[in-house]
Amino acid sequence: MAILLHELVGSDPAKPFSPHCWKVRLALRHKGLDFQTVPVPFTGVPTIEGGSGIVPVLRDGATVVADSFAIAEYLEATYPDAPSLFGGEGGRHLSRFVESWSQRTIHPVVGSLALLDIHDALDPVDQAYFRQSRETRMGKTLEALVQGREQRVAPFLQQLEPLRALLGAQPFLGGPDPLFADYIVFGAFQWLRVSSSLPVLPAGDPIADWFERCLDLHGGEGRLVPAAA
Amino acid sequence: MAILLHELVGSDPAKPFSPHCWKVRLALRHKGLDFQTVPVPFTGVPTIEGGSGIVPVLRDGATVVADSFAIAEYLEATYPDAPSLFGGEGGRHLSRFVESWSQRTIHPVVGSLALLDIHDALDPVDQAYFRQSRETRMGKTLEALVQGREQRVAPFLQQLEPLRALLGAQPFLGGPDPLFADYIVFGAFQWLRVSSSLPVLPAGDPIADWFERCLDLHGGEGRLVPAAA
Repeated sequence: MAILLHELVGSDPAKPFSPHCWKVRLALRHKGLDFQTVPVPFTGVPTIEGGSGIVPVLRDGATVVADSFAIAEYLEATYPDAPSLFGGEGGRHLSRFVESWSQRTIHPVVGSLALLDIHDALDPVDQAYFRQSRETRMGKTLEALVQGREQRVAPFLQQLEPLRALLGAQPFLGGPDPLFADYIVFGAFQWLRVSSSLPVLPAGDPIADWFERCLDLHGGEGRLVPAAA
Repeated sequence: MAILLHELVGSDPAKPFSPHCWKVRLALRHKGLDFQTVPVPFTGVPTIEGGSGIVPVLRDGATVVADSFAIAEYLEATYPDAPSLFGGEGGRHLSRFVESWSQRTIHPVVGSLALLDIHDALDPVDQAYFRQSRETRMGKTLEALVQGREQRVAPFLQQLEPLRALLGAQPFLGGPDPLFADYIVFGAFQWLRVSSSLPVLPAGDPIADWFERCLDLHGGEGRLVPAAA
């Protein structure tokens, strides 16, 4: 039976947008594994595979794994002869630092820039869930949360300086070739690309160049979904 | 002949303070290698080993290597049977991200907090060089540069959140055991510890706990030099 990837979508099941699901899509391609996707809307997440409560969830035969990093570790352990996602144990542990940095530097900003765009791409029942959960958590309406978002781009680009300097010196976070650490950061920018047409990375930025290289990987997997118009 | 490590000092040759030199000290101990240190003041740097122009510089027999990361790579390649500094090629490449992050997140702040303390610990001829080079580069006196430095601590602690979250989840950046990536970040905080008595990391911060663990490593190498009083 083919590997199944349960991934988050809006009203269009062909446009997955979750950063964590994109990490796993590229990790599966990196390992040369075929898979089928199962599109899941926000309100369907609680019941995936008996209730993980999160996306992505991977089913591989009898094995079910939730959480993108856990899935990468599962794939690395289960398919050791395919190209490595971590380049050794040191790479596996240091990928956690990349994850922690991406999650705290890129995710909150992308989330705040694309919040209303994400909402608008959902089915009505998911829009209601999304609006209520986010507005309750943040104490503001979605419209108020995205107000003035253009002003957040320049300070965000400044915060990316450690990544920019690295990618000016080597083609991928993983060195000459990509590793799961690249997919971790790729997922965050792909979430933005698929969700929002707001221009963020300027042309010529080493991060923009690296992102294009990532979009080209594994037969252009990342380009299967178009940029938001 | 013993390995020689040329490292930066002030008026007290027993108190090396350069973050990059500390990275190498711990890397040498990690590899179980004996070494002798050659203390070098700021004005002695241009003439080390025929003129590398930077510290640290390592001499191992006929081989001379300058730059802390290059030295770590040299040690890893030359002493492959000793404990690994990178945990594989993935770890080596991702250590560059840790270096880029540390250099752009921790170094500028520690430099700006400890600038005058560093100056005060130098010999007069090095003080003159240090003051002139730094004041020319920054366009302000050292005294003006450190003014209000206490106010920079809270935003700095906030910027460390990606590291803090990671170290709340695993003992070292390298996972269960330290890797060169730990020494990269350790070097920055050791630079602060040795140079300045300004309190920065609060007790109970997972980063403070990790730093104490690093000070304990390899027979307490990091504690051979006391904290600035």
